[in-house]
Amino acid sequence: MQNDRFLKACRREEVDCTPVWLMRQAGRYLPEYMEIRQKYDFLTMCKTPDLAAEVTLQPVNRLGVDAAILFADILLPLEGMGIELAFAKNEGPVISNPVRTKDDVDKIRILEAEEATPYVLDAIRLIRKELEGRVPLIGFSGAPFTIASYIIEGGGSKDYKNCKSMMWQAPDVWDSLMKKISEVLLKYLKAQIKAGAQAVQMFDSWVGALSPDDYEQYVLPHSKYVLDGLRDEGVPVIHFANNASSMLELVAAAGGDVIGLDWRINLDDAWKRVGYDRGVQGNLDPFTLFAPPSVIEEKVRKILDMAGNRPGHIFNLGHGINKETPVEHAIALVEAVHKYSRR
Amino acid sequence: MQNDRFLKACRREEVDCTPVWLMRQAGRYLPEYMEIRQKYDFLTMCKTPDLAAEVTLQPVNRLGVDAAILFADILLPLEGMGIELAFAKNEGPVISNPVRTKDDVDKIRILEAEEATPYVLDAIRLIRKELEGRVPLIGFSGAPFTIASYIIEGGGSKDYKNCKSMMWQAPDVWDSLMKKISEVLLKYLKAQIKAGAQAVQMFDSWVGALSPDDYEQYVLPHSKYVLDGLRDEGVPVIHFANNASSMLELVAAAGGDVIGLDWRINLDDAWKRVGYDRGVQGNLDPFTLFAPPSVIEEKVRKILDMAGNRPGHIFNLGHGINKETPVEHAIALVEAVHKYSRR
Repeated sequence: MQNDRFLKACRREEVDCTPVWLMRQAGRYLPEYMEIRQKYDFLTMCKTPDLAAEVTLQPVNRLGVDAAILFADILLPLEGMGIELAFAKNEGPVISNPVRTKDDVDKIRILEAEEATPYVLDAIRLIRKELEGRVPLIGFSGAPFTIASYIIEGGGSKDYKNCKSMMWQAPDVWDSLMKKISEVLLKYLKAQIKAGAQAVQMFDSWVGALSPDDYEQYVLPHSKYVLDGLRDEGVPVIHFANNASSMLELVAAAGGDVIGLDWRINLDDAWKRVGYDRGVQGNLDPFTLFAPPSVIEEKVRKILDMAGNRPGHIFNLGHGINKETPVEHAIALVEAVHKYSRR
Repeated sequence: MQNDRFLKACRREEVDCTPVWLMRQAGRYLPEYMEIRQKYDFLTMCKTPDLAAEVTLQPVNRLGVDAAILFADILLPLEGMGIELAFAKNEGPVISNPVRTKDDVDKIRILEAEEATPYVLDAIRLIRKELEGRVPLIGFSGAPFTIASYIIEGGGSKDYKNCKSMMWQAPDVWDSLMKKISEVLLKYLKAQIKAGAQAVQMFDSWVGALSPDDYEQYVLPHSKYVLDGLRDEGVPVIHFANNASSMLELVAAAGGDVIGLDWRINLDDAWKRVGYDRGVQGNLDPFTLFAPPSVIEEKVRKILDMAGNRPGHIFNLGHGINKETPVEHAIALVEAVHKYSRR
């Protein structure tokens, strides 16, 4: 590994400067990504290892980030479960057979990842080859709650009404759905690691819709099941729960070597609450990249100051990079992190 | 005042049981509201004191809540500022001349509330008369950031990109816009109190989009200006900042006799951070009202237990009641709060 800053930081070892990568760094703000995206639809790109590999490498070349992250979607494992997934134009994911009843849950299949998503594993093998050890490759999945929310709501949601209704009205159905999802996610992440992912991140994108009480009762045990199951796989695990700053202790209790932080909390407060026996990842507001470079630099320095050179900080945005972000500002961000964190 | 539980709790005095009201309690989940709404559009209802008074009183009669809250919209003061406001069908507020430049800000007018929104003040006077002292009447406004976000984005937003861009790219323009908005809001709330509002709430609905650092620098001074300006008006002031649990200390520093809490935080943790020299209001997940009454009761008791009969707790939802909420569940909630908090 030519650049092992990211993996060292995940293990809370000393580094020459703070590693940085950006959530959704392989994405639409890059003109070279859009060139490919104009020729293929999103799912085709995910399912074609050559294309997935190509866009995965684009930000490594363009931005100089310290890790690559697999180009994929958190909903890819749904098809193997028997759930019909499509991406409507400008509308995000649409699921035509949402899961609402015990019967629906009983019908969900639990396949091996090699059978359900062979293209993801092929992409990982190809990316590792093409990276030639320049930077490590991060694999990822959604977290059980986030996947459940899509499956139950039939797509994105503003209020998670159906999801919460199942949780409270039919806790047994909820529990068996979450168990099946967790099993699928654990198999999926283990297979990614086996195929060559050198770290994995579990995204709980929508869990911020829950109270701490409901998180603890209905979600934490399932997230913990997945994260515990990865403990002996030999790679660092990042656990990112978006908009969950008010229950960080619970998120940390669910597991993860590194806890991902959104931008709604000061990194020093957050790290204290998470505990210094974990790393933290974050946490610049992604829209800061619309500010002038001088403001970006100032905000980068504030976050680095809060991390205080303590080993175990990985710089990132607090959420995915926006598709209208000026590329040169993303480059300026990466440069600023490296420059101002040089030990 | 026949029922002064709410005002006593605002002043942190002992009460016979915990007062409760629901954000957006005068709203679409009530069939008697929908009957009127089918005959008039939303803005007409806001601007016709007879109609506003009628729907303000509906939940007092139907639910047995301990306070009435004026039926109005946080965007009503915009028209007096010279900003064109409409409510598109199912799309929420639309502003046809969003504010983006120094020139736009310079054009904003600061009128007296009696001139800009006389119908709101008339409605307050009428409601006070019709309430006949049964329960107190709460007036309200948006907070400077939330109003700025609508004015700049031209309506609701998912990411507040234009709003944040102005903040970071043109901090002087941002500052003068926030000052003008704050002036309008202070005049508006003072006029509501003069007309008869016995408490006021300032809603910072969208401030959870900001990092604590940006809140402190770009928003807190302006919210504080409004809240400080209300200190000698003789009525309690509630400050509700939605999705801001990770910066509650800053929200409390901006001011308010009572701090409103969303459902993303445990009430006991929140109150400790806010400080026991303030009251707290909240904080049941509004979607809990889709759960069976037994679950609603259980969750009410947990929140009451966290408040621990400490004087100064006002029970509420953590956000507005959803329009599809079963009315009988809202009634069950109010009954449960009164029953389980009886001293």
